[in-house]
Amino acid sequence: MTITDNPVRNGVDTATLFATLDAVKATPEIAKFQFRATNRWVNGTHSQSTIHGFYGAMQEMTHQQAHVYDADHPAVLVGADNAPTPAEFVLHALAACLTAGLANIAAARNVNLTEVESTVEGDIDLLGILGLSDQVRNGYQGIKVSFKLRGDDPEKLRAVVEQSRRRSAVYDVVTNGVPVAIEVDAG
Amino acid sequence: MTITDNPVRNGVDTATLFATLDAVKATPEIAKFQFRATNRWVNGTHSQSTIHGFYGAMQEMTHQQAHVYDADHPAVLVGADNAPTPAEFVLHALAACLTAGLANIAAARNVNLTEVESTVEGDIDLLGILGLSDQVRNGYQGIKVSFKLRGDDPEKLRAVVEQSRRRSAVYDVVTNGVPVAIEVDAG
Repeated sequence: MTITDNPVRNGVDTATLFATLDAVKATPEIAKFQFRATNRWVNGTHSQSTIHGFYGAMQEMTHQQAHVYDADHPAVLVGADNAPTPAEFVLHALAACLTAGLANIAAARNVNLTEVESTVEGDIDLLGILGLSDQVRNGYQGIKVSFKLRGDDPEKLRAVVEQSRRRSAVYDVVTNGVPVAIEVDAG
Repeated sequence: MTITDNPVRNGVDTATLFATLDAVKATPEIAKFQFRATNRWVNGTHSQSTIHGFYGAMQEMTHQQAHVYDADHPAVLVGADNAPTPAEFVLHALAACLTAGLANIAAARNVNLTEVESTVEGDIDLLGILGLSDQVRNGYQGIKVSFKLRGDDPEKLRAVVEQSRRRSAVYDVVTNGVPVAIEVDAG
């Protein structure tokens, strides 16, 4: 079977996927993206982000609609629990990135997927962020992702997960870190 | 003015905040948390996470409600654009964590805030995740956070941002990285 026999696999349009790869090979500048979020403090530990515009493929673009997400602390962390904590959104991002990647990779390899579920657990000791210990880091001490996949041969499925890990943007950010610059306009 | 003169500042219940600190000093085990997300693949690059339960303060807890978040790729990245990309959720998490922290820190220091806004920009070259260059990393090459704060004296506001950076869980994760273990049940 060739790829063109089945241009949509696992919901991935593989014809477009390969055409995109060819376009980027011809014009690498297409691959430079900038993603953005704007955030507005609401009250206490509650804030709200909007995600809409981004730069990519040599032009300013927008998502089909603006997406708005709140974040807050639960009552046990002196918040009003309007939304998950910021740290929980990192777990969502990690699971979603690995999952999108493995769907693409499976499609490119003609591997069928019928089910992908994951649970992400992040262990954190708040002695760090509370300023009560200099021996404890502020962020997660470790994160565990547990995947359940069903579809083709288990060995093929495991290889797809491994390749997704090797090519995941969020996995790279979370495991290797990124330089972050902070600018302040204080009026 | 003492703290008890104004137990709620910037929407932060400082009395509860300091009581929480005292409780954790007495019983450090309270500070061990585990946050979680479960994710389910929908189709193509589209997946959906649920955030509800977590462990903390020596017990299983839940947010007041379960929160559900989608993630997808835009059309230019061969997705259906049902939601932001996973990588954009990292930017939301970073802005929200720094903002929650600075609201808490300002309240603890008796610094008034009237406005906090931020824009987060993450530059990424997709030659990495597309597997087209071994010289380009998969994740963001750099992230810039631009804060606009209004309230008390600008120097105090800048100091609050700096202290938030020093005690932010997500800033630590994003700048320093975290070990991530991946387990696969492939059927």
